[in-house]
Formats: sequence, C-alpha cells, structure tokens
Amino acid sequence: LVGQADHMLPTVAPLSQSAIEAARERQSRLTKPPGALGRLELLGETLCAIAGVCPPPIPRHPVVAVFAADHGVALAGVTPWPQEVTAQMVANFIAGGAAVNVLARGVGADVIVVDVGVANEIPGAPAESTASFRRHRVRAGTADLSCGPAMTVYEAEAAIAVGLDVARDLISGGADLLATGEMGIGNTTPSAALIASITGRTGADCTGRGTGIDDATLARKTEIVDAAVTRAAGLNATERLADIGGLEIAALAGFIIGGAAGRVPVVLDGVITLAAALVAESLRPGVAAHCIAGHRSTEPAATIALDALGLVPLVDLGLRLGEGSGGVLAIPLIQAAAGVLTNMATFDDAGVSEA
Amino acid sequence: LVGQADHMLPTVAPLSQSAIEAARERQSRLTKPPGALGRLELLGETLCAIAGVCPPPIPRHPVVAVFAADHGVALAGVTPWPQEVTAQMVANFIAGGAAVNVLARGVGADVIVVDVGVANEIPGAPAESTASFRRHRVRAGTADLSCGPAMTVYEAEAAIAVGLDVARDLISGGADLLATGEMGIGNTTPSAALIASITGRTGADCTGRGTGIDDATLARKTEIVDAAVTRAAGLNATERLADIGGLEIAALAGFIIGGAAGRVPVVLDGVITLAAALVAESLRPGVAAHCIAGHRSTEPAATIALDALGLVPLVDLGLRLGEGSGGVLAIPLIQAAAGVLTNMATFDDAGVSEA
Repeated sequence: LVGQADHMLPTVAPLSQSAIEAARERQSRLTKPPGALGRLELLGETLCAIAGVCPPPIPRHPVVAVFAADHGVALAGVTPWPQEVTAQMVANFIAGGAAVNVLARGVGADVIVVDVGVANEIPGAPAESTASFRRHRVRAGTADLSCGPAMTVYEAEAAIAVGLDVARDLISGGADLLATGEMGIGNTTPSAALIASITGRTGADCTGRGTGIDDATLARKTEIVDAAVTRAAGLNATERLADIGGLEIAALAGFIIGGAAGRVPVVLDGVITLAAALVAESLRPGVAAHCIAGHRSTEPAATIALDALGLVPLVDLGLRLGEGSGGVLAIPLIQAAAGVLTNMATFDDAGVSEA
Repeated sequence: LVGQADHMLPTVAPLSQSAIEAARERQSRLTKPPGALGRLELLGETLCAIAGVCPPPIPRHPVVAVFAADHGVALAGVTPWPQEVTAQMVANFIAGGAAVNVLARGVGADVIVVDVGVANEIPGAPAESTASFRRHRVRAGTADLSCGPAMTVYEAEAAIAVGLDVARDLISGGADLLATGEMGIGNTTPSAALIASITGRTGADCTGRGTGIDDATLARKTEIVDAAVTRAAGLNATERLADIGGLEIAALAGFIIGGAAGRVPVVLDGVITLAAALVAESLRPGVAAHCIAGHRSTEPAATIALDALGLVPLVDLGLRLGEGSGGVLAIPLIQAAAGVLTNMATFDDAGVSEA
C-alpha cells in the first residue's frame, strides 16, 4: 500500500462554470442593487459551482468533524499544555462542553469526534464507535518530528483513508456541509512546518504563538519548523505529510478531498485545517476550490495558507482556538448566501421598479 | 411639544462594570486558552454589561425592525431609483421576499416593517397595523433637504416617539435582541449629512455611491451634503435631525434609545442606522455602548460613524444593501458569544488540565 495515496483518492469534479453563470444571472434579477450583497453574492456563486446547480442547496445538515491526535513534538517544548489535554478535550467534546460543541449547537450543526491518533486513554469514552465518536486510532500519537519522521507513509495514508471514510459516511448519512475541526496538543508546529514547506516560506514567517507561548518557546518552535522544512525538501506530497505532519492533519486532508468529491462545501477553520487543505491540494489539485475559508486565525501561517489556497475568509474575529470553532461560526453566512439565491424575490416577482 | 425630545426619552442605565468583571472571570475558567475566542469574548462581556448579568441571556427572539420613509432629496438627483421603490420594497418586505426577510428567516429573527413616512401608497398593504406591519406615517416623506428643512422639529419628535414605541412594544412582547433596518430611496444623503455634521467631517469624507451612482450624481450629492452641514451648524441635536435628517432615521434613533433603555442588545446595520445611532447618542449620551455594530458597510460614512461611536463591526463582507441585512447576519455571532458564556464547560467541570 505504501505510496498509493494517489490511487485511493476519489476524483474531484471541477467547479461548474455554467452554475456560476446561472448564479450571476439570477443575482442580477433579485430585488437589490447589483452587487449590494457584496461577498455574500460571490459565496453564492461558489456554492452553485460546488453543487453544479443554481440555486444551490441550502445546507440544512451541517456536520463538523473534529479529528484528534497527538504529536511527539509536543514533548520537545513547543507548548505549555500537557499532552493528556488532547484526550481530556476529546472527552469534553464527547460530553458536549467544549467551544466547538456550544458553537455547533448554536448553528444547528452536529459534531462528530474522530480519534485518529490520540496518545492517551480518553476518559469515559465509549468502548466502540458511536454516531458522534469514532475510534480510528492509526497509532498513539506521532513520533517527535524534531528528531525524525513523525510517522510512516503507510500511517499517513491510513489516516488519509480515515478522513475519506468519515466524509463519505457523513455525506451518505445526509450531511450537506462538512466543517473541519481538530484537537491535538502541539499541532500548530507540524501545521506551520507543512505550510512553510508547501508555500516556500520560512519558520519565522509561519510560526506563531499557538495557544499562547513565551518568546523562548517561540524561538525553539521556529527552529524546529525550519529544520522540518529543510528535511522535507525533495519529498513528494505524501512523504512530506508523513515526515513533518500529523495524523489529524492527514485525516483532515482525506476528509477535505472526500467532501469535495461528494460535491458538498467544505468549511475550513484555523491553521491546522488550512495546512490540511494545502496537503489536500497537493494530493488532488483543484480541491481547494471546493473549500470555504471559515475565518482568519491570528496564527501567521493561517494567512499565508489562505493566500496560497486563494481563499478569503468569511469571519475575522481574532480567534485562535481551533477545534473547528471559527469554521462553525461561518455556517450561517453560508446558509445565508444559499438562501438569498433560493428565496429572494426578483424585481418581476415583487413588482419593484428598477433603477 | 416642540423641543421636548429630551423629556420624552427614557433613562438608559450605564453598562454594568460588575457584569463585565464576572464575564472576564468566567471566560478565564472555560476550557480554552485565555483569549482564544478573540472578539467573541469581548462581545460576551458587552452582552453581560448590557443585561447587567453574567452569563447573559442568549437572544432567542431577535426582531429586526425596518423603518421606511421617503426623502424629498431623492427628487434632487442623488439616486437613480424612482421614489415609488420605497413603497414597492415595503410591499416586498410584507410579502417576505426581500433580502432582509430571507436573511432574518435564516437566523430565526422576526421582521417588523414600520411605515413612518413613505410617500406613496404601499401596494397590497394591510389597511390596519398588524404584528409585522405598523402604520405610523408621520408625513408622506420629508421635504427636499437641499432646499430647506427636511421636516419640523415636531415631526422629528413624533418619528422618534414611533421608534421608542416600537422598541417598547417589541421588548414587552418578548423580543430579546433588536436589530435595526430601514428602507428609503435617497436616505444615504441625509445619513451622510448627519454623520458629517455630528463628527465634523466634510461631504467629500462622508458621501458614497449608495446603491450605485455615477460621478456626476456623486458630485451633486456631495455638494448637497456640504450645504446641509453648513446649514446645521449651531443647531441642537433635535433641530439638526429635523433639518437635514429623515423620518426613518429619527424613528431609528428612538428605537435605539428604547432598546438600550430596555437593556436588550441593539444591533446596528449600515450607514443609515449608524447615522441614527449618532443621533441617538447626541440625544442620550451613553446609548452607543448598548449597541453592537453588525457589519461594516462599504459606504465611507459608515466607517466614520463606527469610529465616532467607538464600535467595531462583527461582519465585513462588503455589503451595501441596508434593510438591516448586515445586522441580521451578525445575530448568530451574538448568540454564539452569549452561548459560550452560558454553556461551555470549565476546566474543573470537564477535568481538563491547565497549561
């Protein structure tokens, strides 16, 4: 199986240009001045392009999938948080008490948590997979990427397959919008490394303070990112993911490709999911066009990744939590953009005079 | 009654500092790194400060009130839209086909339309006020402010009283968030004039292209704004509103004060509602602190007004439609901020280790 990522990945249809044209024509007839809904109109076009139809379906069953995994590099002094917090937060997700749960409930989105590589036992977790918690632990956390490869190519591919499976299962279960989420103490480090490596930037460009680190920790983290970028030079996309990435990032890359293949909008969150989107784009060029940037994280690599992906985020509120929190906040805006195309009256319908 | 605006206005309680402190303390115990929810945390503090309690109520019954009126200045060549569009759009609001209706339905908000001064008959409108349409026409549109006072002080006060009444009625009926909306062909001109006059800026600073005007129209509009600012110099707040304002702007000022007095969050929309907020603040200093800026309109005077009000908008998607559309889009973010304070687990609750 090693090196077979490309063969297991589904085909992603190109965006529908005819649906974009139909959206523009319809927007021009709605009871509003041309362009007055700004980026909501562009978002409506994107939704049509993804679905291949105008008006696009209004997402009524959004699901945020939170992929959780641990990182050996967390023990190399890049974060003040103990590694067991990953498992504890997964328990918090299962119990419904984390930010992503609260925000998802607020917008009517379901949350599914996927253990793709948590290092520790998850307190109180169900022994078997359930509708909202899936056990797909590829390994109990990656190795420390500052000392050598984080995982094998085989493991990276297995994690990609987990994400693909989750996306397929959710879509076949009725999900009409997939939002990306993650949990993994230390995971801004592999994310910064992947983004720097893929976009040709440096550790200094891409390394941020994550959940809050001091100057000495930031300097250590930046060095680790630079060393990872150097080591990844010349590797192919899957090898790079295995060498300097993470299990939840690999799963998210598969999840994003699976969502795009299923023609549902895929909403990106912060820097970890953006790293995964860059990985996904490197594995299946064209996938990024099926993604919607939910928000702009304060992590510097987030903006670098957004620019590389050609995406402009919907929400910009200085969030840096991850979990999927920023992406979930964007869901009502996506529903709004689809709703405008579906439900607004035209000038003719409403008997309104034009300018 | 003339000149009595100050006496008819209710008292607005100051923001609760103790509720802000309580919010900060609670945020620090929630299962997230400190500050990781960015401006959502500040918004949560504001909601606590407005309600005077922590956690704040999660707004479950938001209502957007769309105040509609006509403007004599619309006939002075400041807009390409015929004046009858105001009445036609009110009919569209009543029928539920306008952007604000679609967006409000999407977020579970009710829409109420208030005719405070439409010039023409509203096609198909109910003969009497209903739950979602109120007839409070103070006069059939203002006079042309480019030739003289738009209305009398008595009329401005009557329109303020309409807004106060609507806010009181909605709050007593269970509304727990008031969003501001408006319709009035030509109403960016009085809005720009009021904003320029109140903030000490020029016509060139404050005049924008509204729903879309050419260079010659923009030049004419800018001249009219400058002349209005000159004429309003030395007038008191109510006189200025009467001289260069509009009936829906006056009603919105009353509505904003009524919402603040009732201790519910008041969500502002674009440049017209921001002009009304500045008027409200000039009538009742302290009111602006009870307002939440829903979005940043592309109109230049919107940003000038936001800065003068000390408000930072939640959504910035290049909208310039009005009706309340941008404010409505912010409602889920406000619910999210309240939801975080109410429903997120603390580190202790969830058994999560701290950094």
